[in-house]
Amino acid sequence: MEISGRQLIAGRETSATSDSFKADNPATGDALEPAFYEATVEEINEAVEAALEAFEIYRSKRVETRADFLDAIADEILVLGDEFLERTSAETGYPLARCSAERDRAINHTRQFANLIREGSWLDARIDLPDPTRKPFPKPDVRSLMQPLGPVAVFGASNFPIAISVLGADTMSAFASGCPVVIKGHPAHPGTCELAARAIYAAAERTGVPAGVFSLLQGRGHEVGTALVQHPDITAAAFTGSLAGGRALFDVANQRPVPIPFYAEMGSVNPLFILPGALKSRAPQIAEGFVAALTQGNGQFCTNPGIVLGNESEDWQRFSALVKEKVEAVAPATMLHAGIHKAYRSGIESRCENEDLQVLGHSSENPDDAKLEAAAYLFETTQQGIVNDPTLLDELFGPCSTLVSCGGSEDMIALAKSLEGSLSVTIHGTEKDLADHRDLISILQTKTGRLIFNGYPVGLEVCHSIHHGGPYPATTHSHYTSVGTRAIERFVRPVCYQDWPDTLLPIELQNANPRGVLRMLNGHRTRDAV
Amino acid sequence: MEISGRQLIAGRETSATSDSFKADNPATGDALEPAFYEATVEEINEAVEAALEAFEIYRSKRVETRADFLDAIADEILVLGDEFLERTSAETGYPLARCSAERDRAINHTRQFANLIREGSWLDARIDLPDPTRKPFPKPDVRSLMQPLGPVAVFGASNFPIAISVLGADTMSAFASGCPVVIKGHPAHPGTCELAARAIYAAAERTGVPAGVFSLLQGRGHEVGTALVQHPDITAAAFTGSLAGGRALFDVANQRPVPIPFYAEMGSVNPLFILPGALKSRAPQIAEGFVAALTQGNGQFCTNPGIVLGNESEDWQRFSALVKEKVEAVAPATMLHAGIHKAYRSGIESRCENEDLQVLGHSSENPDDAKLEAAAYLFETTQQGIVNDPTLLDELFGPCSTLVSCGGSEDMIALAKSLEGSLSVTIHGTEKDLADHRDLISILQTKTGRLIFNGYPVGLEVCHSIHHGGPYPATTHSHYTSVGTRAIERFVRPVCYQDWPDTLLPIELQNANPRGVLRMLNGHRTRDAV
Repeated sequence: MEISGRQLIAGRETSATSDSFKADNPATGDALEPAFYEATVEEINEAVEAALEAFEIYRSKRVETRADFLDAIADEILVLGDEFLERTSAETGYPLARCSAERDRAINHTRQFANLIREGSWLDARIDLPDPTRKPFPKPDVRSLMQPLGPVAVFGASNFPIAISVLGADTMSAFASGCPVVIKGHPAHPGTCELAARAIYAAAERTGVPAGVFSLLQGRGHEVGTALVQHPDITAAAFTGSLAGGRALFDVANQRPVPIPFYAEMGSVNPLFILPGALKSRAPQIAEGFVAALTQGNGQFCTNPGIVLGNESEDWQRFSALVKEKVEAVAPATMLHAGIHKAYRSGIESRCENEDLQVLGHSSENPDDAKLEAAAYLFETTQQGIVNDPTLLDELFGPCSTLVSCGGSEDMIALAKSLEGSLSVTIHGTEKDLADHRDLISILQTKTGRLIFNGYPVGLEVCHSIHHGGPYPATTHSHYTSVGTRAIERFVRPVCYQDWPDTLLPIELQNANPRGVLRMLNGHRTRDAV
Repeated sequence: MEISGRQLIAGRETSATSDSFKADNPATGDALEPAFYEATVEEINEAVEAALEAFEIYRSKRVETRADFLDAIADEILVLGDEFLERTSAETGYPLARCSAERDRAINHTRQFANLIREGSWLDARIDLPDPTRKPFPKPDVRSLMQPLGPVAVFGASNFPIAISVLGADTMSAFASGCPVVIKGHPAHPGTCELAARAIYAAAERTGVPAGVFSLLQGRGHEVGTALVQHPDITAAAFTGSLAGGRALFDVANQRPVPIPFYAEMGSVNPLFILPGALKSRAPQIAEGFVAALTQGNGQFCTNPGIVLGNESEDWQRFSALVKEKVEAVAPATMLHAGIHKAYRSGIESRCENEDLQVLGHSSENPDDAKLEAAAYLFETTQQGIVNDPTLLDELFGPCSTLVSCGGSEDMIALAKSLEGSLSVTIHGTEKDLADHRDLISILQTKTGRLIFNGYPVGLEVCHSIHHGGPYPATTHSHYTSVGTRAIERFVRPVCYQDWPDTLLPIELQNANPRGVLRMLNGHRTRDAV
């Protein structure tokens, strides 16, 4: 399939300027053909107008059509074939197996959202029946359920070019809810974005969905994204990326005359606590699991364990020696793009110069800058080091982590209290450890969206109960997740119908409950008809 | 019961400054004893610190304790007796019957939240069971449910001194979720706030809940509220009041280093559409119902119908004549406080001078400024008048509304498209009208949180399915309601437990499901144990 490098607006190819950029192959430094054109303000407006027009049609479609559309997207992703995976690999430096795993994940979550909307309980349909005889006032008939917001802006992540980009859960949950999507393509993988977009259009055509439900705008800087978030007809935005980028767009969204929700997932430091019993009994296993989690995907995960905490002891020293040995055996690998590579290199340099940190170990081979390679790094410090320089708790995106030795449980609690919000917190412990550290665990629950026991935070399970979110700065709104079926909640709002004629109600609120969805009827959950 | 005029911080009375103010009786202009002291920065900090400390204890309490606490508050509200209603009446000018109705509503919603948390399905507990044999990676055990955020700041409304103030659904939904509350008392009814606070403390004492779950801070200006929203340990805020006040605090909340959700309900213009069939068949009934809704509570409702739209016709002229006659028969009544009275007077004056508006009619008697009386006003204009001056669609808080005559269905649709977000939209029509105006109704669904058929927006039914919210500027986040049991969703976030030991899980996620709550188990809703 040819890549045109142009905007895809409601299925139409356009390019209104000669200003263009190319993606680089990070492993070779070679520019990849073709050039991609910067979206203009007129093209941004055109995409949003098409989305608004499509919204009127799309939100009125039967839920089965929306579900079929999603299933068709899942089919069409496979139709893209090896060419798609090869382009992704060339744009990211990821091996084909990783690209294929991401494709599986995208297909999986797309079908999950199709099934979710067919089942229908996510709508939270509620009915309170009337009572005309009630005193002093008759009780009206009141019903409500979730309805879609309108056109949604999506910003994909560089580190998941398939599973958190054009084909990510942001796009699919918006489609599932009934919202059109205008996505700002990621400049590090624009070709992957374009091919993915073509799968969406093929699915739309097959299922009779208007092409305006989707547009792809390309751009290398911040201008296109900022203009998109400022467009008056955009009703919400979802973002995965850096804290700096997420916060800047969050501020733009809130400063609009009509503010809109801006759901940003901005990564985090993902602390991993090793309690004394686990440190004594399983140090080799934890060392192996931790270094594997740290260096998987070259450390380029939002859930990368950036700090590890344990009590200073012989066991801790043994653990430190083990992880040092393991990290030194790791081969350097190519990072996603020059920007990430540069930030990682400079972050490592400043950590090496920080007197509150010592280098514990790093990959033994010399990384090749021309291939954007990164060495894995482990630092060590004490709790006092963190007190001296709290920026040591900031995330550094890449295969780098810091071991923090604490003076005991009280110190660990004090450190836990000082933590910022994280996507995940991991605890390694025995049953006795947990019983001995209830206060610590209680505090950690207030700091994160996901608690992991005797495991590792990377390799997120995509399911109904997953929560990939957490207190700021992990996200901009801790109620919402960007992964898992709860992600659909970001793009809907309740609409209430009072004394509304049955035939005009949304089907899930009608007396007969023709779709048999679970509803709250006078306060009780039931699938019964009224 | 004596009113001290001091801050109530975790049950302790404090006053750290001599700076004080008194409430006025709006019907007489008399200052009411005693003086209320301005909260200082130290007192604000003290209240939030007490809330944070209480949070650790309160969120660990069994849900039954939280429910009993709420039921005890409902009991203690009644114990306050007539003295409470008399104080409220003196501070607001409301007749005792209105005060008593508000008390009933507060008792009702407080018990609703108690029952909601006993039932438990609101927690949205979810379990995805593990599969250690899955390839290529074993599937972990993943579970999640809603957990409380932390200390919540609440700002009550002047127009509901009992039902949307200290004893409002903001406070009760926060308590139900497991969050402590620090409330900024409303300066127009500080005595009502203090008496209400004492009911909360009595209930806390009876049920073994730490007094730190609640504090009341008094203040006449913006300083106390702004400092409260800026406090780093406040995790969310709920507000009911004006657009200017709500937006200012929303901006403060978003500009914090760690932004917090600021849920503001800021009122709206609540359009009322009369379709041709209804105009022909029920003009006298609609005229009577509309003027009653407009002037109930002296028009001081967020859901007051501020514009009425119909097609220019003989029927419309007949309807206009009927409402003119009815509004001229309304007696002027006292407004809530001098600020609201002044804003209403000045709003009416500027509307009278606006060349795009004509006065259709107003209360026949002269209002008495000394009693802060307001005359009810009806204006009329055409759709072109709205095009000329879109500010005619801005809310004017008080018994004032504008009749807008349209040139036909197309004009009505164009006007509907130009509407800002509203808490409610009302449609009067026959079944045929609805069938003939599907496009209009479709657009109106995107403009509001609640659609009412052949009724009136005031007199909100407080129940599970109600939604008192809507697109900006009705609220700052259209997903959330400030009335009804869904209000609890504002103060919680999902927390996910991966491979967590059963005995340490929140009780609602444990295998045995001892509370029998409805859960999502591998994607299916069930009360079954695992």
